[in-house]
Amino acid sequence: MQIVQVDLGDRSYPIYIGSGLLSESNLFLPHIKSDQVCIVTNQTVGPLYENVLQSSLTGKRVALVELPDGEAHKNFSTLNLVFDGLLQARHNRNTTLIALGGGVVGDMCGFAAASYQRGVNFIQVPTTLLSQVDSSVGGKTGINHPLGKNMIGAFYQPQAVIIDIDLLATLPAREISAGLAEIIKYGLLGDGEFLLWLEQNIERLVALESDALIYAIQRSCENKARIVAADERESGVRALLNLGHTFGHAIETQLGYGNWLHGEAVGAGMMLAAELSEKLGWLATEDVARVRNLLARAVLPIAAPKSMTVDQFLTHMSVDKKVMDGRLRFVLLKALGEAVVVSDVGLADVEQVLQASINSGLADIR
Amino acid sequence: MQIVQVDLGDRSYPIYIGSGLLSESNLFLPHIKSDQVCIVTNQTVGPLYENVLQSSLTGKRVALVELPDGEAHKNFSTLNLVFDGLLQARHNRNTTLIALGGGVVGDMCGFAAASYQRGVNFIQVPTTLLSQVDSSVGGKTGINHPLGKNMIGAFYQPQAVIIDIDLLATLPAREISAGLAEIIKYGLLGDGEFLLWLEQNIERLVALESDALIYAIQRSCENKARIVAADERESGVRALLNLGHTFGHAIETQLGYGNWLHGEAVGAGMMLAAELSEKLGWLATEDVARVRNLLARAVLPIAAPKSMTVDQFLTHMSVDKKVMDGRLRFVLLKALGEAVVVSDVGLADVEQVLQASINSGLADIR
Repeated sequence: MQIVQVDLGDRSYPIYIGSGLLSESNLFLPHIKSDQVCIVTNQTVGPLYENVLQSSLTGKRVALVELPDGEAHKNFSTLNLVFDGLLQARHNRNTTLIALGGGVVGDMCGFAAASYQRGVNFIQVPTTLLSQVDSSVGGKTGINHPLGKNMIGAFYQPQAVIIDIDLLATLPAREISAGLAEIIKYGLLGDGEFLLWLEQNIERLVALESDALIYAIQRSCENKARIVAADERESGVRALLNLGHTFGHAIETQLGYGNWLHGEAVGAGMMLAAELSEKLGWLATEDVARVRNLLARAVLPIAAPKSMTVDQFLTHMSVDKKVMDGRLRFVLLKALGEAVVVSDVGLADVEQVLQASINSGLADIR
Repeated sequence: MQIVQVDLGDRSYPIYIGSGLLSESNLFLPHIKSDQVCIVTNQTVGPLYENVLQSSLTGKRVALVELPDGEAHKNFSTLNLVFDGLLQARHNRNTTLIALGGGVVGDMCGFAAASYQRGVNFIQVPTTLLSQVDSSVGGKTGINHPLGKNMIGAFYQPQAVIIDIDLLATLPAREISAGLAEIIKYGLLGDGEFLLWLEQNIERLVALESDALIYAIQRSCENKARIVAADERESGVRALLNLGHTFGHAIETQLGYGNWLHGEAVGAGMMLAAELSEKLGWLATEDVARVRNLLARAVLPIAAPKSMTVDQFLTHMSVDKKVMDGRLRFVLLKALGEAVVVSDVGLADVEQVLQASINSGLADIR
């Protein structure tokens, strides 16, 4: 087992990464402060793992809330199922919520924890590769609004994150690839050494080899933890974590949540960011080819969906949270392993890169 | 103008208290960080004051969201009107929300600010006496759930609070009394000197005399600010602020939001707390008479509603946030001006005090 400590003052917490951790009672109990616990999961993951988790919660009175599965349900009425469950079971402000699921469950359970009685404790048990390397670190919680993704939420830190890589065995291959997109992101944005390791080991990750997975998850969490610790509320360097996300959110919004997976949209978004960086003269053609090759080996989209238009991209990007006072901001690559935030990119360059990517016809909607 | 500084580290903020402040542009502008501002008000207060406020926001692009008035609308669908308004006007995370209204508007606007894009700035302009002395300090924001009041929310501090006592001129007399309940609370729970001042000046407050109002608001905010600064997230001494609230919330829940005003329920709740304190041998009969007399002069209820039953009280109090691990906790008075939190009160004593108060027939539903 590896432990990554996320250093945020009195909101610091550990991430445990290993095999078989779901049944390690002694990992959970020190982070639970009363006898009330509420497991929040979904209808897909719950039936697979909630019994194992319940057995680890020795001596606790455990409530269980199963949410409908999928990004389409990441809204207030689903969130309210958690509040209903907590209030019906008369949970007080000393309760502990446990998120057992992927990013959607983690974001909603985290926001429920942030909001229930103005804040209770929670533990994350991320069950997808993407949530293990992304939402494990950073405290971003929230729900969607019809006019934008993650528009309602809170920055709220868990007491602990418990990552059991055995849970990945039941995950569809597409979800593994989606997680690899975020892992590749950490290499591209600030860890060239890790990028080289990924270029040597990407097939081992696709094949779910334990030691490779534990290393990649640990290194990803360390990368993210370092950045988040420097900028908890996303006013500066943390914006680098949005590499691929400005384009990616536009794809998700246009296609409707749940068509492309978040990680797939981020994969295509990173490709577009690399191509825009080449357009600005920062990346060489060979660099862009390395990015394209790595994404393709991770079985990820390497272009914008051919059904989308440039105008659709621009419309969705202008309500993106990364927009400051009306200016489009991008995270681009000065070099492989070195991302920067740029707000003075010419609109024509953006349009040309988008149009070329769409015209390539390399990516379809699913 | 008086200024009370609420001292919460990097979340500190000033409260300005005076006459005519709504049109003082120079009070607002330093607390607004971009050109985006959204006024959140209700359909009663908005038409009276939103134009004056808009004139003070020189050079800003101002969006306006008018919510339906009343505690019955303090729910997610009303809250969502704020998110709709912000997203339709494409407000980004540098926007500033201004709450123009009473406690309901303040709580919802504050929670909207806490949650919109995971947190944006907000300024409070409380327009009721109760919100001026209560929600101005402490950062409690939130909405109700059918199973409990304020069950969903956040601790979130404003950039500034601007209290213009001129706005009280349009407030119904019942709302003034409700505000006086909270003002009296500060005297009872920890400021015996202020309690004496109130016993000498309560009629001047009922009559809205400016200098008396400014002094009482300032002293109330100072009392609350001192307590909140010592315990921002309500894990200790802040519980004293709930004097009268355990009983009061039960009354509000049973009668339905909007029958008794919050301050009226707190008034009756403080009376019950005083009577329970007498039952435990802490207050003398004369002390209880002083409380009853002061509340009556402030035109507040001095008993539990005669239509309620003891069982209804007990049911509602057991889901109250002040319940720790199933034990009923009360804020009671060791002496006038000295409140304590007690969790070992005998149930029989509580029942007898409630029954006697109900039987007195002194308070009806409105």
